[in-house]
Amino acid sequence: MKENVRILGIDDGPFLREIDTDTVLTGVLMRLDGTIERIMVSRIQIDGSDILPTLKSFLADLNKLRVYAIVSEGVTFGGFNLIVPEEFTAITGIPYISVTKSQGELDSMISAIDKHCLNPSYYRDKIAQLKPVRKKIYATDFTINIAGIPVEEAMILLKRLMKVGTVPEPVRIAHMISSAVRSVENTEKKRKI
Amino acid sequence: MKENVRILGIDDGPFLREIDTDTVLTGVLMRLDGTIERIMVSRIQIDGSDILPTLKSFLADLNKLRVYAIVSEGVTFGGFNLIVPEEFTAITGIPYISVTKSQGELDSMISAIDKHCLNPSYYRDKIAQLKPVRKKIYATDFTINIAGIPVEEAMILLKRLMKVGTVPEPVRIAHMISSAVRSVENTEKKRKI
Repeated sequence: MKENVRILGIDDGPFLREIDTDTVLTGVLMRLDGTIERIMVSRIQIDGSDILPTLKSFLADLNKLRVYAIVSEGVTFGGFNLIVPEEFTAITGIPYISVTKSQGELDSMISAIDKHCLNPSYYRDKIAQLKPVRKKIYATDFTINIAGIPVEEAMILLKRLMKVGTVPEPVRIAHMISSAVRSVENTEKKRKI
Repeated sequence: MKENVRILGIDDGPFLREIDTDTVLTGVLMRLDGTIERIMVSRIQIDGSDILPTLKSFLADLNKLRVYAIVSEGVTFGGFNLIVPEEFTAITGIPYISVTKSQGELDSMISAIDKHCLNPSYYRDKIAQLKPVRKKIYATDFTINIAGIPVEEAMILLKRLMKVGTVPEPVRIAHMISSAVRSVENTEKKRKI
């Protein structure tokens, strides 16, 4: 795999359902050699359905920079803002790789649907489309949800991207940025109260 | 120099004097091997004097992670929020390295003082403390302002940190984050109008 292949890692910021209506989503475009080429920050609704248009706007902002694959930790953002990798890839033509150590992601999603979702049948249909597989990377078990890329290739990519701990590097950095942005937003809110 | 030495790169976000009263300042803590360990975002006033307390709060947030040096592009942030490296180092004990390609930074500062500063004599005194030197890194001329570190060592550090173009890597990433955060803030403002 070439060193200048570009991966877009995404991650959302923390939020409190009682207080927040939205949170941030950060995208970090990183080459396989570790160079960060672009950073994008946007907002997504809590338990909303705007993750797909948000990712499409990230891709539009990248203009002609070719994204080899999108990588995320899990398939939900800002609560129940859900990405179905196959749906994403069918629309954008770009492979999608979700990876998470958590084993019960689908189970916990299903049990929380009735609690948090205004439209549970919509989410049940979406979740039914997911095809999680359990895979080992180095010595750790992960649940992966992928589309548009063979499993073997996705595994090679994930191994290359996991430099620090068990999170792909562009996702780890997107996570730090989302958290830092939310932290300063919360400080602002307190100042205004 | 050890690979696990930690550099804190900082950079501010864009702003418009007619509209904004503050902007963001991002800090990126990076090891010499390129690993990003922490990302912090805060706010600074336009033409204010809160850059020093903001950097002190970044250092406090880093708790016991030892920062080898702070690196920035130039010595002004959010307009005239000015860092005097010697003053910073005297207070914090941490070396400070400012580097910029721009040759006329001091001249343009002095000519803009009367235009933008409520207290021009305060800024003139601060600027008089700066001791810029002109140095070549690879084939490019830079103005550097340093304190708490010998020039030769600062030059070695800057060469190591300039991986992409002529900006030290943690500063380049802090710049991308600050810009992305301001971009989403401006989108929010437009939505509220």
